[in-house]
Amino acid sequence: MDQLGLGNQPQNLDAVFGALADPTRRAILTRLADGEASVMELAEPFAMSQPAVSKHLKVLERAGLIARGHDRQRRPAQLEAAPMAAAVAWLEDFRAFWAGSFDQLDGLLEELKQAETKGKRE
Amino acid sequence: MDQLGLGNQPQNLDAVFGALADPTRRAILTRLADGEASVMELAEPFAMSQPAVSKHLKVLERAGLIARGHDRQRRPAQLEAAPMAAAVAWLEDFRAFWAGSFDQLDGLLEELKQAETKGKRE
Repeated sequence: MDQLGLGNQPQNLDAVFGALADPTRRAILTRLADGEASVMELAEPFAMSQPAVSKHLKVLERAGLIARGHDRQRRPAQLEAAPMAAAVAWLEDFRAFWAGSFDQLDGLLEELKQAETKGKRE
Repeated sequence: MDQLGLGNQPQNLDAVFGALADPTRRAILTRLADGEASVMELAEPFAMSQPAVSKHLKVLERAGLIARGHDRQRRPAQLEAAPMAAAVAWLEDFRAFWAGSFDQLDGLLEELKQAETKGKRE
């Protein structure tokens, strides 16, 4: 599954999954998908203090999920989505299992439907 | 993106990503993909104490990533991969960004190759 050459960095996978385990950090990443933003620009819509936003940005930066600009005043945060590919690559190995669960559910629904139709006919 | 109907459970996404942020827990999930296992059976290959394994299993169970059997003695753990689908669904929204990064890298490599070929010809 190591087609992206990222699967050999388990410690990074720890940081990536850890960074994603927080709703504010996920919301920040979603916001950054629309374009870079400064701490001040992020603090406003999230109704958070700038130090709180900075703390979240540090976690995201350590995981490689964002990069910070060099402008000393603004240091805009920018999305770096590549580590997400490593996370998906790891999860994809289990696709057969979760797809299987949905197949089972589909099968069960089909059976229930048929039983209902049969019940109506009788 | 909510095609699986799981995207409305952000608190579960916290638990799923949090559970995945540990190499031992990821290894346990990989082991369970081969079939259910008791705490004792998991403790051996991981060279961990049974209480340590139990602690990891509790985190995985809270995230819905495993289910425990009812056999009081063994309580075998069983993989429940469905929550991983929710995690992938969330990450997939960023596919354009990480795919873009790889495209840029591909483009750069192509340019370098062409520059090298051109350099050799001259």
